[in-house]
Amino acid sequence: MKIVVDMLGGDLGLDATVKGLSSFLSAHPDVEIIAVGPQNELSILGSKVTVINATQTMKMDAHAMEILHDKESSMAIAVNTLVKENADAIVSAGGTGAYLTLASLRVKKLDGVLRPALISPIPTLKENHKTLLLDLGANNENSVDELISFINMSKIYYQSVYFQEPIFALLSNGSEENKGSPLIQETYQKIKELKIPNFKGNIEGSDILKGDVDIIVTDGFTGNIALKAMEGTGAVAKELLKAAFTKSFKNKLAYLLVKKDLKNKLSMLSSKPLGGAMFIGMKKIVVKAHGNSDAVAFKNALETAYQCVKNNLIDKISQGVSHE
Amino acid sequence: MKIVVDMLGGDLGLDATVKGLSSFLSAHPDVEIIAVGPQNELSILGSKVTVINATQTMKMDAHAMEILHDKESSMAIAVNTLVKENADAIVSAGGTGAYLTLASLRVKKLDGVLRPALISPIPTLKENHKTLLLDLGANNENSVDELISFINMSKIYYQSVYFQEPIFALLSNGSEENKGSPLIQETYQKIKELKIPNFKGNIEGSDILKGDVDIIVTDGFTGNIALKAMEGTGAVAKELLKAAFTKSFKNKLAYLLVKKDLKNKLSMLSSKPLGGAMFIGMKKIVVKAHGNSDAVAFKNALETAYQCVKNNLIDKISQGVSHE
Repeated sequence: MKIVVDMLGGDLGLDATVKGLSSFLSAHPDVEIIAVGPQNELSILGSKVTVINATQTMKMDAHAMEILHDKESSMAIAVNTLVKENADAIVSAGGTGAYLTLASLRVKKLDGVLRPALISPIPTLKENHKTLLLDLGANNENSVDELISFINMSKIYYQSVYFQEPIFALLSNGSEENKGSPLIQETYQKIKELKIPNFKGNIEGSDILKGDVDIIVTDGFTGNIALKAMEGTGAVAKELLKAAFTKSFKNKLAYLLVKKDLKNKLSMLSSKPLGGAMFIGMKKIVVKAHGNSDAVAFKNALETAYQCVKNNLIDKISQGVSHE
Repeated sequence: MKIVVDMLGGDLGLDATVKGLSSFLSAHPDVEIIAVGPQNELSILGSKVTVINATQTMKMDAHAMEILHDKESSMAIAVNTLVKENADAIVSAGGTGAYLTLASLRVKKLDGVLRPALISPIPTLKENHKTLLLDLGANNENSVDELISFINMSKIYYQSVYFQEPIFALLSNGSEENKGSPLIQETYQKIKELKIPNFKGNIEGSDILKGDVDIIVTDGFTGNIALKAMEGTGAVAKELLKAAFTKSFKNKLAYLLVKKDLKNKLSMLSSKPLGGAMFIGMKKIVVKAHGNSDAVAFKNALETAYQCVKNNLIDKISQGVSHE
């Protein structure tokens, strides 16, 4: 197994990616790694890791043409290396837009896939249970057939990684069958018509984190807004807590007493343990670590890539879509 | 000023609505109230309040036909009373779907309004600043012209209630001009074409609570999912906090120390101080209090209705849309 790693993409820089990669390699010494980043600083990774030199980061606000002509950034070099070396997977914490653009153009989608989608596990109130949410923003709009294809791909993903038959739902503005945008209403009817098993119906935005289903499917516009609305609220909750706990000496004392359990419980509102999002439907495993990934988050993103390769996800999706 | 109040709609029953209404009346003894609820239990409101008897609550899962034929529920009687008595406003904490259906059919929309929308103030990280978010789910889909009309109506609402010129934005899956669903992209261009002032561009789901803008406009499907995703995350945050603070004696002690400031800060994640949502674009002020409104929340919903009537919101919107 060969994984290409963009060492420069994340907000926290080399420190997070080097530590994350080292930790991943301790667990999986058999994996061949091509690390793309500043050669002089990556020698600490040891002789088993192949280093390709790159000293620039992809601009966060790069336009499509800049992204396409970029040959210097670690992300562009990493994506090109993935293709040239015929590696199995790529992991980057760089900007989603540029990453999706590069992956779409260089890696290409699997034959039979209508549109790739960005998929990520979301933590839920049920312990040790994660729900897959897609599309998180690879597309600005989607058709009924594309949503059906998202259902099929995500079911294969769930089976491959969690080894269980998933229950899925559509995200809607009401749980009843007749609720939803025209797209969701039509998709609901198409699912019934196709008799796709384990369909739980519609669920609302307030139910995403409850863990009642294993997969939640929506279009890329809606999914992006739902995910970011949740992330934003989680961040606000943390900010409010901080304000409360730092307000007085008494409150600071209270924080010391409850700190450990609080951090432990509230880690659910953090995206770090989740192993990043995946661009599903491509010819290679393309994993997007969160921009602010620390070492643990980056290691988990590498782990996601590893699991998907090990479980032959690409082959399974390729076979799955060819039956459609 | 005459306000019709559905006393039975909320989850917390008469106790919350009676206390909320009494508290509202202490502040505004001049307002004429028609309270719809069980006559024998509402006599405590005093002789100044007109009571219309109703002992049934609108079924939460009522179908459209059941809603239309319902003549017994407090909500149906309240909506009919609003029209028959030519009152200025109605407040109910009953189910949104039934309420919207009844209001649409009996109260009707203002001439020139394309579609009514559900609008609510959202708390933000900026102290004492609220952002209006619409449409929260009155519609399953919207056109460009409808979104433009939402902008116009919400600007009038903001000016009438907060006495300031609002800055508005579109909710999108990226802040750049070229991001968004086709609807959002087209609306963006239409806003530029019409040169609507104080347009801040697109904002993302993670920015809703930041308070950088005064109005956020989106279609009813997306707005409903964004609002509920935020509500759901807020509820999860509270559940996780509770789990942390009740885990041990030490943690319970910490809670006692920080309790007051914590409740105070986290009240932002509660919808109760906000005064409910409004069905904007109708011929009357139609206010929807949150289903789980306590006395304070219900009083605030009554206050919203009062402010809108006092500031002649209906006339202003009516004049505003006739210029479109």
